[in-house]
Amino acid sequence: MMRLLSMLYNDQEQLGIEDKNSSQILVLEKAFQHFHPGTECPADMITAIHLGEPFLNSAEKVLEQALTIPHAEFWISANEIEWLAPITKPPKNIMCVGKNYAAHARELGSDADIPEYPIIFTKPHTSIAAHEQHVDLHREVSEQVDYEGEVAIVIGKKGSKIKREEAWDYVYGVTLLNDLTARDLQARHKQFFLGKSLDQFSPLGPVLVTNVNEMITAEETITTKVNGDIRQSAPLTDMIFDIPELIHIISRGITLEPGDIIATGTPAGVGKGMNPPQYLRAGDEVSIHLPLIGTLVNQMK
Amino acid sequence: MMRLLSMLYNDQEQLGIEDKNSSQILVLEKAFQHFHPGTECPADMITAIHLGEPFLNSAEKVLEQALTIPHAEFWISANEIEWLAPITKPPKNIMCVGKNYAAHARELGSDADIPEYPIIFTKPHTSIAAHEQHVDLHREVSEQVDYEGEVAIVIGKKGSKIKREEAWDYVYGVTLLNDLTARDLQARHKQFFLGKSLDQFSPLGPVLVTNVNEMITAEETITTKVNGDIRQSAPLTDMIFDIPELIHIISRGITLEPGDIIATGTPAGVGKGMNPPQYLRAGDEVSIHLPLIGTLVNQMK
Repeated sequence: MMRLLSMLYNDQEQLGIEDKNSSQILVLEKAFQHFHPGTECPADMITAIHLGEPFLNSAEKVLEQALTIPHAEFWISANEIEWLAPITKPPKNIMCVGKNYAAHARELGSDADIPEYPIIFTKPHTSIAAHEQHVDLHREVSEQVDYEGEVAIVIGKKGSKIKREEAWDYVYGVTLLNDLTARDLQARHKQFFLGKSLDQFSPLGPVLVTNVNEMITAEETITTKVNGDIRQSAPLTDMIFDIPELIHIISRGITLEPGDIIATGTPAGVGKGMNPPQYLRAGDEVSIHLPLIGTLVNQMK
Repeated sequence: MMRLLSMLYNDQEQLGIEDKNSSQILVLEKAFQHFHPGTECPADMITAIHLGEPFLNSAEKVLEQALTIPHAEFWISANEIEWLAPITKPPKNIMCVGKNYAAHARELGSDADIPEYPIIFTKPHTSIAAHEQHVDLHREVSEQVDYEGEVAIVIGKKGSKIKREEAWDYVYGVTLLNDLTARDLQARHKQFFLGKSLDQFSPLGPVLVTNVNEMITAEETITTKVNGDIRQSAPLTDMIFDIPELIHIISRGITLEPGDIIATGTPAGVGKGMNPPQYLRAGDEVSIHLPLIGTLVNQMK
């Protein structure tokens, strides 16, 4: 497992690896230059994913070496960087699953809303925002912006007609998504695309954790807070359609590609489900946490 | 107006211009080399669109010059090429409008289905197919594949919050889309994405006609035939939400980019609307025609 990230450092897009113990960030290119002067470091995450296992292996090796020199100049602290979303331009729009937790389906309607088949919609790359970025609530078009904390998987290799039992082989890593939603537009335009796709409505990150599997994710609980108050909290095992099932069903007719992102749906506890509904306001801070990944934090503006 | 196209010629992706009178195709790179040896010809349509007016002007000039030498080696016939979709990888999924012709909304339901606000969903680039390509009906996942003939616009420059009256300035050109749809998946998965997005379900082309405007398109009628029988035929003025309105509404919160594709919806006459419904079968040929653009033809397999 590695905690890969994209960042602006010295005004340049760079790949980094977060060390969970020290909270320091390894500037991957600098570390490559130091330990393996000949080796080229990929310029961005999509390039890295396309390089597959060989890149993961050499990055892991470089990380091990770098950990032995904790004060070297290739280690920086998080306040020296501007976070970027781990992936800023996936090959397809982000694919999202609606109502994938039974309690969430119920809070938006009734038992009748629990889906028999996964409900898939998309969000374009122009909606992707970074950890710590301030998100525009688009007040001129919506008065009902709502949070949805979700785990998102990133596809590592091309495939279609992927079997359930082979699905994890296609997962490069996991990250967090705030599937921000303008509830008024979502209802008005029937299909979800418009209400889900406003610029900055897909905060993604902070890191992309690689080499995960069913065992690792099974024990995890996703928690969403607004201004510190817990609003959503559910184990990932509560998903109606689990990660292998989603990959299987989507890939039956659609070719998945390296860098594609599939968000796995949100638990109960969204603002629309409260009585009365409570939507996001300027200044609100939404944080989404999974122990495995960390915390994705965004303030609304 | 120019009839730009993408093609495989000599095993290479190339840009071409179709001459409507002679049906000959100008190999743009060869013509650039001949008339303006110093000038670089863009490698693909997205690059060309990013170059904006200067590219359009020089291409138009080269076309004029080339027309004076009709038997030169930069002119080839359509049977020497393999057609590619004009754009094979738009920055976002193709954005499509559901039920944008009143008679079509009625054939799928009733007057109650005529939308008050545009219904927007998307199709990924992996679903794009070329003119004359044979399309897989994905029999293993659907028994109800249906055609939808549509005009699609291509965005020429970046913009958001675009006013109705300025919308045509953002249109680079128009082409045709067959918005193939697996009706069973569309119904089962509620949101349209899955049923619309199977590989090859978005035949696009054959050409991208540039420098169009409201005056030019207003007189046009779109016609869809299956095995030569007319199934759909409607003037573009029948759209509920016209092209400027669609650009205006989508861009209120979503930044549009060069190469983005917006399909404008399909008229009445789809297979699902027939009594009994009549879905596509292997061997069926679907052709979509707009006088301004030409005919997009695909056989099902």
